[in-house]
Amino acid sequence: MNEVVLIGASGLAREVVASVQGANRYIGILDDDPATHGRTIAGLPVLGGVELAADRAERLLVCVGAGVLRRAIVRRLALLGVGADRYAAHVADHAVIGAGSRIGAGAVLLDGVVVTADAVVGHHVVVMPNTVVTHDDVVGDFVTLAAGVALGGGVSLGEAAFLGMNAAVAPGVVIGRDAVIGMGAVVLADVPPAQTWAGVPAHPLTRNDPKIARSGP
Amino acid sequence: MNEVVLIGASGLAREVVASVQGANRYIGILDDDPATHGRTIAGLPVLGGVELAADRAERLLVCVGAGVLRRAIVRRLALLGVGADRYAAHVADHAVIGAGSRIGAGAVLLDGVVVTADAVVGHHVVVMPNTVVTHDDVVGDFVTLAAGVALGGGVSLGEAAFLGMNAAVAPGVVIGRDAVIGMGAVVLADVPPAQTWAGVPAHPLTRNDPKIARSGP
Amino acid sequence: MNEVVLIGASGLAREVVASVQGANRYIGILDDDPATHGRTIAGLPVLGGVELAADRAERLLVCVGAGVLRRAIVRRLALLGVGADRYAAHVADHAVIGAGSRIGAGAVLLDGVVVTADAVVGHHVVVMPNTVVTHDDVVGDFVTLAAGVALGGGVSLGEAAFLGMNAAVAPGVVIGRDAVIGMGAVVLADVPPAQTWAGVPAHPLTRNDPKIARSGP
Repeated sequence: MNEVVLIGASGLAREVVASVQGANRYIGILDDDPATHGRTIAGLPVLGGVELAADRAERLLVCVGAGVLRRAIVRRLALLGVGADRYAAHVADHAVIGAGSRIGAGAVLLDGVVVTADAVVGHHVVVMPNTVVTHDDVVGDFVTLAAGVALGGGVSLGEAAFLGMNAAVAPGVVIGRDAVIGMGAVVLADVPPAQTWAGVPAHPLTRNDPKIARSGP
Repeated sequence: MNEVVLIGASGLAREVVASVQGANRYIGILDDDPATHGRTIAGLPVLGGVELAADRAERLLVCVGAGVLRRAIVRRLALLGVGADRYAAHVADHAVIGAGSRIGAGAVLLDGVVVTADAVVGHHVVVMPNTVVTHDDVVGDFVTLAAGVALGGGVSLGEAAFLGMNAAVAPGVVIGRDAVIGMGAVVLADVPPAQTWAGVPAHPLTRNDPKIARSGP
Repeated sequence: MNEVVLIGASGLAREVVASVQGANRYIGILDDDPATHGRTIAGLPVLGGVELAADRAERLLVCVGAGVLRRAIVRRLALLGVGADRYAAHVADHAVIGAGSRIGAGAVLLDGVVVTADAVVGHHVVVMPNTVVTHDDVVGDFVTLAAGVALGGGVSLGEAAFLGMNAAVAPGVVIGRDAVIGMGAVVLADVPPAQTWAGVPAHPLTRNDPKIARSGP
């Protein structure tokens, strides 16, 4: 049993605490908003600002919905001496991880997630409920997969990419770093880094497209 | 263990009986169709018409696919003195309900449903398999969520709204009472009461649109 | 416990081996590619070509993603005297099969699949994670359902039909044999045999449509 402090007084933090799993015991939250300090969220005390992580002994789990913000926090804490070994993962008891697949430190996999064979889920990845990761997928660090996403085999997702709810990605597709995929999108072709694609089939969004990519983890 | 009588000799009733859960024991069915009386459905006897519910001692569960019909039955029985305390919920053993979330009386949550943190699922709500309800969602009474639906955080669904299979709703969206959302719809904006929206992204259906909203629980 | 030999040194075979279930013990793989012979895949030895199945005593499971290829292998082995009784099914421990539903020999149902009441899943069907089959559905032999598919009640799928990830099929719809349904498609009308439909709502694809049907199991 790891004692773990959550970073971010967020909805995601509450979802992590509400999800049963046998590996971690959550004991508090750190958040940069002074208004949260001293409050109790999901039964846990908010202990102070994020920098306190450097002075504490527990393991850490960054619970911020946006991957780019998780990356910013991890980089900030690295400058304070917080290494990769300090981060715990949260794999819910009702997530299913196939033999041969690997889950990175700091990853959050909520209930109903299925990872089949020989997939690599990176560090600080967030996977919302009932999402499916299949054989040989490579999910980069800081990626966010919203609920109900389905990945075909051999998909590669670049660092901090975001996939909206119920999006589907065809086998072998490569999605670049910091790309955003809209809710319900059907991705059939490779997506360059930092682009936003949406629709059935997915295409790059332009200035005049509806805000189909709006979504959260 | 509650002894429970189902109302409605429907496919949904058979799905409830087929779904393993430890809280209820189903002992019979009531249905207004005289042709069903005396028959055996899913191993249970059809005992007679719906009004018999007022004279029986068991708990009740309304198993009718359409929320507006569930509402009509509950109102009809209320006039006969059947109070809210008479209704049992069915939460399948393979559904996952996060700490802090509440499930109303008369609700049906089938296997693979995940409810994360601090959500409120109303009375007589039906949630089909593998649907995801996330943090701070408010699902109104008599709502129906078909299979594979995904709700972002902070979504509000009005009474008796219907969401078709694999629909997705962006965080914070408000869907009005009696609204109908089509299969595979991606809902990015608030939906007024009693409207039908469908598509990616979802838009109001007009007389000439295909019957994309067609679906059942 | 059945001793089972897998046919096809595929990603699907690795997903089957990676998925925990209590009924089968996998002991080897047969594949027609001589380059695989003698190699070890997912911890199992590749024992030789597919024809060896006729001479062995174990049960068999065809792990090839495309239903038409599974059908071709089963027919080829039938000519060598391999009968239907030789095939085992793989139902993952985290799949949920409702009472009254039947699963055919040679079928693969991975984790998170939910089958509700009174459905018939045919022989050599492959169902990827988190797909939902509901009441009275008839899933023909050699059908492939990719991840996240949702079927309404009373749907009928013809032999070797393929449904892409996150597709949804309205209640009562009939999809013909060898039909292909694209990823994320919303099927509201009957689909004739051997046609390819895709989109929201789904329509027949023409020569100029994007390759929306591209997908794998």
